[in-house]
Amino acid sequence: MSRIDVLRIDRSEKKNIQDVVTEEIPLTVYLNGKELLTLLCSPDSLKELSTGFLYSSGLIKSKNDIKNITIDNQKWTSHIKLNTKGAAPQPIFKRIASNIKISSEKILTLMDSFQKMSVTFRGTGGVHSAALSNGNDILIFKEDIGRHNALDKVIGEALMKGLKMEDLIVLSSGRISSEIISKVQKIKSPFLISRSAPTDQAIKKAGELNLTLIGFARGKRMNVYTANERIV
Amino acid sequence: MSRIDVLRIDRSEKKNIQDVVTEEIPLTVYLNGKELLTLLCSPDSLKELSTGFLYSSGLIKSKNDIKNITIDNQKWTSHIKLNTKGAAPQPIFKRIASNIKISSEKILTLMDSFQKMSVTFRGTGGVHSAALSNGNDILIFKEDIGRHNALDKVIGEALMKGLKMEDLIVLSSGRISSEIISKVQKIKSPFLISRSAPTDQAIKKAGELNLTLIGFARGKRMNVYTANERIV
Repeated sequence: MSRIDVLRIDRSEKKNIQDVVTEEIPLTVYLNGKELLTLLCSPDSLKELSTGFLYSSGLIKSKNDIKNITIDNQKWTSHIKLNTKGAAPQPIFKRIASNIKISSEKILTLMDSFQKMSVTFRGTGGVHSAALSNGNDILIFKEDIGRHNALDKVIGEALMKGLKMEDLIVLSSGRISSEIISKVQKIKSPFLISRSAPTDQAIKKAGELNLTLIGFARGKRMNVYTANERIV
Repeated sequence: MSRIDVLRIDRSEKKNIQDVVTEEIPLTVYLNGKELLTLLCSPDSLKELSTGFLYSSGLIKSKNDIKNITIDNQKWTSHIKLNTKGAAPQPIFKRIASNIKISSEKILTLMDSFQKMSVTFRGTGGVHSAALSNGNDILIFKEDIGRHNALDKVIGEALMKGLKMEDLIVLSSGRISSEIISKVQKIKSPFLISRSAPTDQAIKKAGELNLTLIGFARGKRMNVYTANERIV
């Protein structure tokens, strides 16, 4: 978080105060020496972000495809060397077959813990969170100014730690678009639970994948859009 | 909006209901016959989106650079033919010199009207809004599943209508990142007002441009981050 000067106006009363705001950095990602793209993101977990981004974009199929990653925190660059040459083959489309079930009470308890972890969010109001849970505990929790980055950071750390993501539940603070579903498809997680709304295409894609998609999970309520047989 | 079936769970009580969700479509943009990119967006105002996107990305410098735009609502494509060949030169960096001033009361009244226009948002909870105002009225109002798209749609319509954007105020529902500031820089508007938080880089860039950046403008309060001499 950065500290900045701000003029706060409240019912015509003006006050000069200091406030904290979310930091944003441009991370330029190089793959085998070639510039791939620049991600605007929060400045933490950049190795995880690089790994997760490559994986969820289909550019690597396991962490073993990565030889090394060098992050430069001055120039904000991520240099990634791959063991393999060229892009990995696209994974074959598969319906999620997981038999994992979870109760709605458990889901709301998880979302409550998830919400409480969002300290930065409460501080500056400018970031999204994503997490992976085994149904009881939150195993990985990340924040970023971008919804996609937060999820990529979580995926990257899970890959680096060798977690079996097809048994885990994805939690998100942000809107669910078809792009977010594509990322969850890659890791084969059977559950995606968000505090916010999904789009129609996200619901369609989740249905095709047999992914349990839950939106507006907050307080005592939630909407289950697809594959509701996993909710007990 | 799409109508979908949803299992609503409220305090362990389960009910099958119908609900509305935001639509999302993949719009593939072709420039002079060559595929440029695919935007995930809401299905309205696609000509405006195409125009605004090209302008705010620096690919055109006025609407006269566009020969014609053909939208296909079945395949979701936008075919744009330009009069000029190749990309337009990048605009030279300029500090915003506008002498326009506005009162904080007026700003909050505008943001209140802006909020009330977000009918879709209240319906489905899944979209962002952007608008252009002359300080008294909201002249253009657009919504989209993406913050950037909503602003590009507004910019596109303003270009098509020939509005002088350097005299207008930009309103936004979403977080302000440096990318959003870059779009406002292109249209030279002196005010950017949002209901949400800015990032540190957005504040830095707004300061360099002498753009009046206001965040958390809701109810009776707002934070003025930069160029506060324009607030009276």
